[in-house]
Amino acid sequence: MPVLSELDGLVVVLVRARNPLNIGAAARAMSNFGAHRLRLVNPYAAGFREARSAVGASDLLEKAEEYKTVAEAVADCALVVGTTAVRNRVLQQPVRQLDEPAGSAIRQQLRTERVALLFGSEKIGLTNKDFSHCHWLLNIPTKEQNISMNLGQAVAVCLYEVARSTPLQPAAEDVKPATAGAAERITEGLLEALRISGYVKPGTDAMFEKKARRLILRFNLEAYDAKLLLGMVRQIVWKLRQGTKG
Amino acid sequence: MPVLSELDGLVVVLVRARNPLNIGAAARAMSNFGAHRLRLVNPYAAGFREARSAVGASDLLEKAEEYKTVAEAVADCALVVGTTAVRNRVLQQPVRQLDEPAGSAIRQQLRTERVALLFGSEKIGLTNKDFSHCHWLLNIPTKEQNISMNLGQAVAVCLYEVARSTPLQPAAEDVKPATAGAAERITEGLLEALRISGYVKPGTDAMFEKKARRLILRFNLEAYDAKLLLGMVRQIVWKLRQGTKG
Repeated sequence: MPVLSELDGLVVVLVRARNPLNIGAAARAMSNFGAHRLRLVNPYAAGFREARSAVGASDLLEKAEEYKTVAEAVADCALVVGTTAVRNRVLQQPVRQLDEPAGSAIRQQLRTERVALLFGSEKIGLTNKDFSHCHWLLNIPTKEQNISMNLGQAVAVCLYEVARSTPLQPAAEDVKPATAGAAERITEGLLEALRISGYVKPGTDAMFEKKARRLILRFNLEAYDAKLLLGMVRQIVWKLRQGTKG
Repeated sequence: MPVLSELDGLVVVLVRARNPLNIGAAARAMSNFGAHRLRLVNPYAAGFREARSAVGASDLLEKAEEYKTVAEAVADCALVVGTTAVRNRVLQQPVRQLDEPAGSAIRQQLRTERVALLFGSEKIGLTNKDFSHCHWLLNIPTKEQNISMNLGQAVAVCLYEVARSTPLQPAAEDVKPATAGAAERITEGLLEALRISGYVKPGTDAMFEKKARRLILRFNLEAYDAKLLLGMVRQIVWKLRQGTKG
């Protein structure tokens, strides 16, 4: 009998999920494979906590946390992975197929830090803005003629793969990665500096926000460097604000 | 972009499925991973062919075939695999974990023959009688605290694994395995011989039926040998019947 390794640090984030039955089914699959942190960003579904589909997972569903934004839902995670059915959309993030090494990469990070796995709404999936919070994207290899998976089934397949995978390599020595929350604070500071300095033109805010976020995530910052960089950015912002007062 | 290998010969058999939404979800997952032969043994669900959960798979669902017995539903398959959530029940068949080599063993057989993958009802799964039709059983490695998966999610996880697996070894040269139907005809003949000869006592028929079926499946008969053995058994039965007339 195989012992499934712990997925204690895995955070499943459902973004704008619509159908309570799907939310319950996601909870059931989490329970099947040993994940227990469920977070919901703006769920449309009222009453999802009573979903009958959460067989054996009602506790998990009861403890699910609700958030207003993706940024808040992933703030304590060191790795943020978005799921997508689409392969040929122009994407700014690297896309990995579910299967080794994607499962292994997630397991590797889970040895020391929390990892967020994002699933989008049943209708449109994750948006480009959601993707901008992700270090990389995960694609379940499906047939071209029907790439759209049911939400509960997609969660089950991803968790099965992560549960069966083994870490990519021995844990790196003493390197503590920055959390998504730390990276987001740097992004906010950078954006503020760009706005005040006139780099960001009026009306292009939303585009630059995503661009800046992706840039900071690509740094793969260590926790120490994130702290250092945030201090620098904040000092710059302070100075810029002083200048506008003068 | 990975090309999923063909699962053309894979037959998904749902035995006594109750919920039309689960049947539709199973069809959707089949469509996602490239399987298209759906068979239903005594489905409880009237109107399942219109299940809205079969997104992108309505054609597949429309073409699903209904059978009265497991024996009929798997008759043209050379390998019959049952799924079970239970690990500690006393089982007469070998149990393999989903993952290599179970996925690979199925893919290996699919190179030349049809393979049936059986899923039981939502309430009780497959019975011991259903299992007696199986060469071996498949277990999805889940956590002890919640081993019961949703039917649609179990189908998705199994098909994902079979789709991603590669065949175990190069195709054997020229060995054509017997179909489940051929094996079943031998079982029937053997049982008839055992009944007439008094080996099977009245009231123990059901037990001996399962026992005989498992025995014949363990032979892993080649097609040629199955034909030979069936001829022998039928001759014996004929002779036994002659004897009872005298």
